[in-house]
Amino acid sequence: MVAWRNLDQLDAFHALQALEDQVVLKEVMLGDSGKERVEKYQVPMAEGLVYNFAAKKVNDRVLATLSDLAKEAQLTEKFQELYNGEIINTGEHRRVLHHLVRGQLGEDVCVDGVNKRAFYVEQQNKIADFAKKVHAGEITNEAGEKFTTVVQIGIGGSDLGPRAIYIGLENWAKKTGNFKMEAKFISNVDPDDAAVVLNSIDIAHALFILVSKSGTTLETLTNETFVKNAIKKEGLDPARHMVAVTSETSPLAKGTDYITAFFMDDYIGGRYSVSSSVGGAILSLAFGPEVFADFLAGMAAADDTAKNEDIFQNPAMLDALIGVYERNILDCEVTAVLPYSQAMSRFPAHLQQADMESNGKSVNRFGEPVHYKTGPVIFGEPGTNGQHSFYQLLHQGTTIVPLQFIGFRENQAGMDDVIEGSTSQQKLKANVAAQIVAFACGKEDQDLNKKFEGERPSSIIVGDQLTPKTLGAILAHFENKIMFQGFLWNVNSFDQEGVQLGKVLAKNVLAGKSEGALAAYSKLLGI
Amino acid sequence: MVAWRNLDQLDAFHALQALEDQVVLKEVMLGDSGKERVEKYQVPMAEGLVYNFAAKKVNDRVLATLSDLAKEAQLTEKFQELYNGEIINTGEHRRVLHHLVRGQLGEDVCVDGVNKRAFYVEQQNKIADFAKKVHAGEITNEAGEKFTTVVQIGIGGSDLGPRAIYIGLENWAKKTGNFKMEAKFISNVDPDDAAVVLNSIDIAHALFILVSKSGTTLETLTNETFVKNAIKKEGLDPARHMVAVTSETSPLAKGTDYITAFFMDDYIGGRYSVSSSVGGAILSLAFGPEVFADFLAGMAAADDTAKNEDIFQNPAMLDALIGVYERNILDCEVTAVLPYSQAMSRFPAHLQQADMESNGKSVNRFGEPVHYKTGPVIFGEPGTNGQHSFYQLLHQGTTIVPLQFIGFRENQAGMDDVIEGSTSQQKLKANVAAQIVAFACGKEDQDLNKKFEGERPSSIIVGDQLTPKTLGAILAHFENKIMFQGFLWNVNSFDQEGVQLGKVLAKNVLAGKSEGALAAYSKLLGI
Repeated sequence: MVAWRNLDQLDAFHALQALEDQVVLKEVMLGDSGKERVEKYQVPMAEGLVYNFAAKKVNDRVLATLSDLAKEAQLTEKFQELYNGEIINTGEHRRVLHHLVRGQLGEDVCVDGVNKRAFYVEQQNKIADFAKKVHAGEITNEAGEKFTTVVQIGIGGSDLGPRAIYIGLENWAKKTGNFKMEAKFISNVDPDDAAVVLNSIDIAHALFILVSKSGTTLETLTNETFVKNAIKKEGLDPARHMVAVTSETSPLAKGTDYITAFFMDDYIGGRYSVSSSVGGAILSLAFGPEVFADFLAGMAAADDTAKNEDIFQNPAMLDALIGVYERNILDCEVTAVLPYSQAMSRFPAHLQQADMESNGKSVNRFGEPVHYKTGPVIFGEPGTNGQHSFYQLLHQGTTIVPLQFIGFRENQAGMDDVIEGSTSQQKLKANVAAQIVAFACGKEDQDLNKKFEGERPSSIIVGDQLTPKTLGAILAHFENKIMFQGFLWNVNSFDQEGVQLGKVLAKNVLAGKSEGALAAYSKLLGI
Repeated sequence: MVAWRNLDQLDAFHALQALEDQVVLKEVMLGDSGKERVEKYQVPMAEGLVYNFAAKKVNDRVLATLSDLAKEAQLTEKFQELYNGEIINTGEHRRVLHHLVRGQLGEDVCVDGVNKRAFYVEQQNKIADFAKKVHAGEITNEAGEKFTTVVQIGIGGSDLGPRAIYIGLENWAKKTGNFKMEAKFISNVDPDDAAVVLNSIDIAHALFILVSKSGTTLETLTNETFVKNAIKKEGLDPARHMVAVTSETSPLAKGTDYITAFFMDDYIGGRYSVSSSVGGAILSLAFGPEVFADFLAGMAAADDTAKNEDIFQNPAMLDALIGVYERNILDCEVTAVLPYSQAMSRFPAHLQQADMESNGKSVNRFGEPVHYKTGPVIFGEPGTNGQHSFYQLLHQGTTIVPLQFIGFRENQAGMDDVIEGSTSQQKLKANVAAQIVAFACGKEDQDLNKKFEGERPSSIIVGDQLTPKTLGAILAHFENKIMFQGFLWNVNSFDQEGVQLGKVLAKNVLAGKSEGALAAYSKLLGI
């Protein structure tokens, strides 16, 4: 059995706190030793990716202590318990099985006589079969015509992940001949969100995917009816235009209002559901089931490296440990995720949910208050755009923000020109290399307004190209990083009780039951 | 003359630090007194908007001290100096005239014999005339056909602001019959960005706007050539498909490569340039010059309220002061901007630049280090989407993030249904009201995992509808808030030296002049 202990109960954490002489980046990153450091401080990731942490404020001594911390916190054993189906989500008394969706890491997990891996594969096959029939024109609209657009109706984990991956692969798919159908997303209860999407598509040829695990999400059920009303206004039958992704126990599962339903279950948290039917349906329809299978293969490969006990062969664990060092020793409150790839424009928004909703907690897994900082605030935009926006504060502001860069050697669309002696892709890459060094080493200047202190830590994930496999591996890297950090902070990363109160109060407002300040705000807003 | 003094040199700041008994939100927001507080703690903004700060951790005593601080810091006088054309941007020895673009707040500002207000109006008229001719088919492509799409090529301030406003008004324009042309944006030097846009449009009917004040921005010039190559590949003449927005002294101003050029000048910072030709050209083409004029009118109205010495009649100043209280007394490092309006989806990204690039500084306007925290990290996503993403951390995490909500009584598209007893717009509004109260008051629970501490401060801006005028007023509110905060922190909010080092190092990489760590990163990235 593993021991679930708070971070500040671990000897290695106190050893970490006791370490003196913090690493000075502008010293260690200088000259030839800096070059050697960049070559040495990197570990291989799945799918040919590399995690380079040379510009982090660590040295061999810090790393050795982090390695001790990993062992003392039993990170590997806890991951084992998780993928072997223990009740890791204690608050909701649930297993945490999103890894099982994309591969068999450990033992069979059977619940009520059902082998869960078999169940997930069955759903994948069902989706693949459905998608192929839609693409082949065997499943059509009432008029026997092909569906040309697929629209996901979902919010939070049913929106951010699938949307980020769709945007991430759309142009790769177009370039490689894997693009099958355009995808759109309706998420917000703001009626303008649904209106805009509905006005931009040909409803008669649109297939809608209703995604709600519980079948009770206010926004999603509202948008379902909103969309059905719009379909009816076209004189069409909503039941011929909609599929459901839900759990077998949800009210939606029993409905006859859908062409068919694909299932997930309570062991897949919303923010970890891209690899389940939640991402599977829309991505298989947009790009074909083979592309989605490749995406899952990339995730599975990353999960496999996360099993390694050696932190230098486990980039997710190493990344997690360095993040805890930055959060709890260097006292940093924010982390920026900065992909140098326009296709990853919404990836930071997905990580924002995955990370902040998982580890933004103040009590440990036993419901006791913790006396240290947990999950940081996450934000980010693609580079080089961010350079012309918020990088000023990152370079010269009074808050130190650790940075997580991502870069690729090649672009996706394969369209590039040599302009002033270099291609756009070379310029993009030169910029990310330059930023890492600028953030770490800074620059002296007599004019303090032009001086750069440096000492801004960063890491970079580098790959050849953003593809289904590499994108899958990167996403799983971050999912596993968040998991390991949750283990270190001893929080339950898989519940989200913090979203409940707002829901209850909003229902009160709509039921006319608000009073005091809530009534005054309702009046102000003209409800 | 005003006295430019550091925040910690001001008596009122020390008085603020000395105040005891911090406001406890769950006490003051309770019951009837909470209702009264919501009704009392709000000030009118321009264009019928309201700034409500009832859920901020202030009381009459704190507010009185903030009022003293405003007077001692001479915020009104400094703003006067700014709009009267003093050299407020000391680092670059420049005036700061973005307010003058949208109205005459003070004295005439003449530079080298040119009345700058007249110059800006002249450019607006030139743009209006051009846009009308494009819409009327008097300015056409080579084949004499109408342009149907307009594409902005620009980065940072030439991209984020215009894009946020375009997205903010697109559906309003479609609903009200003001939609003239679809707009697209190319910003990133990642070649996939331009490739995607070029593949999505009909180049023969596209008009491109090249935006670079200096005429030297690497990304923009690269994308200019990239686009021109694509135009040539279609057998078309790039000079017939492109206009320039630049300063009269830039290399672009002299070119014959453009249909025409519209000018701005060095007194308009990039992040404050939405109201100049930078936003004017694309917004006038997309929605018509009258809509852009309304947008400017909304900004001018907000600027006018910012002149008021009374903080209770100056929402931008009040917002700025409360923000400084949160940053320097309550020690908060991050602010979230949360519009409950899907149309404002990219507004937080624009504010991220406007705020973080302006006030992310460590030296005062004289180049001396400051010994207090300056600009916070800004991030945000629209609600209710954020509720299903990062709100968990905001409610129950270990970091307190002050929140800036925005909400509207009506939606834009005018398409809404009553579902389960309420419209989507009512649900949207009920959610934002509920969140404010949930964040402020929290909820007791025996199970600490379900307990909400509350004490998370927020404010809300409320309006009837997101229109050109209200969106203009909201944007100017934030621009002016940032300006007042810069005055309080005594930083130069109008330069951005922190972006220079990365540019220099990237050029070195491309010139093959990198060594040490930079060379190692370049090799890793395959440059």
